[in-house]
This record gives sequence, structure tokens and C-alpha cells, in this order.
Amino acid sequence: MTRHALTLQTTAHEQVQDLTLQVRQLVRQSGVAAGLCLVYCPHTTAGLVINEGYDPDVASDVLALLDRLAPWHGPYQHAEGNAAAHAKAILTGTSQTILVENGDLALGTWQALQFYEFDGPRTRTVVVTLMEATS
Amino acid sequence: MTRHALTLQTTAHEQVQDLTLQVRQLVRQSGVAAGLCLVYCPHTTAGLVINEGYDPDVASDVLALLDRLAPWHGPYQHAEGNAAAHAKAILTGTSQTILVENGDLALGTWQALQFYEFDGPRTRTVVVTLMEATS
Amino acid sequence: MTRHALTLQTTAHEQVQDLTLQVRQLVRQSGVAAGLCLVYCPHTTAGLVINEGYDPDVASDVLALLDRLAPWHGPYQHAEGNAAAHAKAILTGTSQTILVENGDLALGTWQALQFYEFDGPRTRTVVVTLMEATS
Repeated sequence: MTRHALTLQTTAHEQVQDLTLQVRQLVRQSGVAAGLCLVYCPHTTAGLVINEGYDPDVASDVLALLDRLAPWHGPYQHAEGNAAAHAKAILTGTSQTILVENGDLALGTWQALQFYEFDGPRTRTVVVTLMEATS
Repeated sequence: MTRHALTLQTTAHEQVQDLTLQVRQLVRQSGVAAGLCLVYCPHTTAGLVINEGYDPDVASDVLALLDRLAPWHGPYQHAEGNAAAHAKAILTGTSQTILVENGDLALGTWQALQFYEFDGPRTRTVVVTLMEATS
Repeated sequence: MTRHALTLQTTAHEQVQDLTLQVRQLVRQSGVAAGLCLVYCPHTTAGLVINEGYDPDVASDVLALLDRLAPWHGPYQHAEGNAAAHAKAILTGTSQTILVENGDLALGTWQALQFYEFDGPRTRTVVVTLMEATS
């Protein structure tokens, strides 16, 4: 098992960053031919998503939709004022598990691995764990 | 580690198909006694869900609710016109990980594994990976 | 691979219970130094979430928001009357996968593992599987 931490800097309050190339490079360099890749977000106001990366409008449409579902100024009690960011993190998800085969991430043709920032700008970490199959 | 691809044909714009029997059969035939089963959707306008499969009204209620949350005709920028389908895929999820024990999928009593089509009809693939435990 | 079942009793119709300490204790006692921990909810009207556990207002804000997204009395067909609980289970998720390193759960600083009850009070089970890394 190998574990890598990626550091990223988000530059806006809400933002989507594509991690596909970085994670793909980690997998290729690891020498793991087959196994599972767990990509994990250790934060509570950001999420990890696998979806279309080709047209950036998809990510901005999804950010805008999430904002309609969980508006920033809602009837929240949480004193920090960022309850909506926590809710969006829950709706998108904390981790993604992806198959590794032939030494590469087995994403679908149109799939990208994306970091969704919901309460930036912040310095963020994403933890990538590779678990090799034994047979 | 073994990897199987299931092919399915959805026959409506939105549709839920139950994959439980097919995946269960794959697990039983694999000879894997204990481990993890990763069921992965390589598409960006469909999702994988584990929920009640006994009453089909649950799935249609959920499809209708998702449509209220992410209406097909919304204020979207994505040129392909299916931003809602991408959003629903994100809200439901790209994969499910299920325990394998005693050579079978360890689902709860009322749980079914379901493929949620949000932009069909299409030919779709689901990738089932079995990772055997070593001890 | 080791598998443990936690039993919990929810005491309200909707409720969030923190499982972090219990799961952490299981991991520490297991002797597994490094690997993956799959926490799985075998129910269809409850979810597993990783999010902030420090301020209980976050969980109650999220419960209230989910109730606005999927109101209990909606235009549902499901005869049992709890379609909203099924929808909330889907929106939150059936399982969480967490890295184990140094014999401990590798959660982020502010992350807690939470059981979201959407149709209680009930006796519930959560299945914790530890899969050790071989190298």
C-alpha cells in the first residue's frame, strides 16, 4: 500500500479543480499494475467528484445548482456561517474509489476526478492511497 | 483481483435497472470467499445506488424527486443540454463498495444494487471488480 | 480481513449519531497497521456521512436541509410512506471507505463518521470491515 498527499490551493470561494492528471501520474509512477485507488478528501467543506471534465460548464452548472439546493444564506444554526458548504460536501462525497488496471486509473472516457471547493480560498490536501491486488 | 464488465441497455430517458442478481452471480461464480466488491459506473450521466428494490415505487419516487432538485430545463450553460443528468449522477454517485463474505455479496435484507440512467436510452457498461482478502 | 457489526439504537425519527470513537476503537484493537476500512450501512432509510462532528449544529442544519430537499409529505407513490427517507439515504450514501495507517483511522482533523437516521427510532446495524494491506 502506498499513500501520497497532494496539496492544492483553491483561489475562489467555490471552485472545481481537476485532479485527474496528477492522480494518474501518481498511479503510473507507483508501479502498481492492478488494484484499487482511494482518493480521499480530509476536509468537511469540500468534496470529491467523478464527472465530465471536458466542458468546464458542467462543473459550473453543478456548482450553481448546489447553491440553489443549499443556499449560502439559509436558516442555519451553525455559528461559523458555512453550513451550506458542509451540506454540499455531504451531497458530493468525501472519497472516490477507482480501479487500477494495466498500471493506470480505469476512468471512463469522459470522466475526470474533480475537487469541489465549497468554502475557499484555502490550502487543501487530498490523500491518494493505492492498494495493490495480490493476484 | 478479477474484473468483469456488465453491459446493459437502458430503454428510456430516465430509468432504474436492478443489477443485484447479475452482480451476485458474478461474485458467486468468481470463487472469491471474502473481500471487497467495487461496482463502478464509467459514465457521467448515470449513477449507482444501493437502496430498496422490493417496491419499484421507491425508485420512481427518487427519480421524480431528483428531477425536482435538478430539473431538465434549468438555467444551465452546458452546450450539450444534459447538465441535469450530470448533476444527478453526482448526487447519486459513481460507485458502490460492498463486502463479500461467504462467497456472496453482503447486502442488507432490503438492499438492491441499482443503475440509475439519467440520459438514456443508451448502451451502458458497469465494471465489477472483486478484490480478494488475503487472510 | 476482519468484519465487525456495530449495533445502535436511534431514539428519534431523524437523528445523527457519531460513530467515530467506536470505529476508531475497533481499528486500534484489530491490530491492522495499514489498509482500508469500509463502513457499511445495510439499511435503506439511513446513511453514512463523514463531516464535521465538533459543532452538533452542522448535523442538525444538514438534517433540516435534507428535509427541505426531500420533504416527508411529498408527491410520493411508495405505499410505506417513507419515500423521503429512502431518497435521503441515497443523497447521503450507503458506505464510507477510510484509510487505515499507523493502526488508526486516517480521518481529517475536523472529520467525524456519522450515522444519519431518516426513519427511526429503530435498532440499526453498521458493518465495519478492515482489509489489511499486504505490503
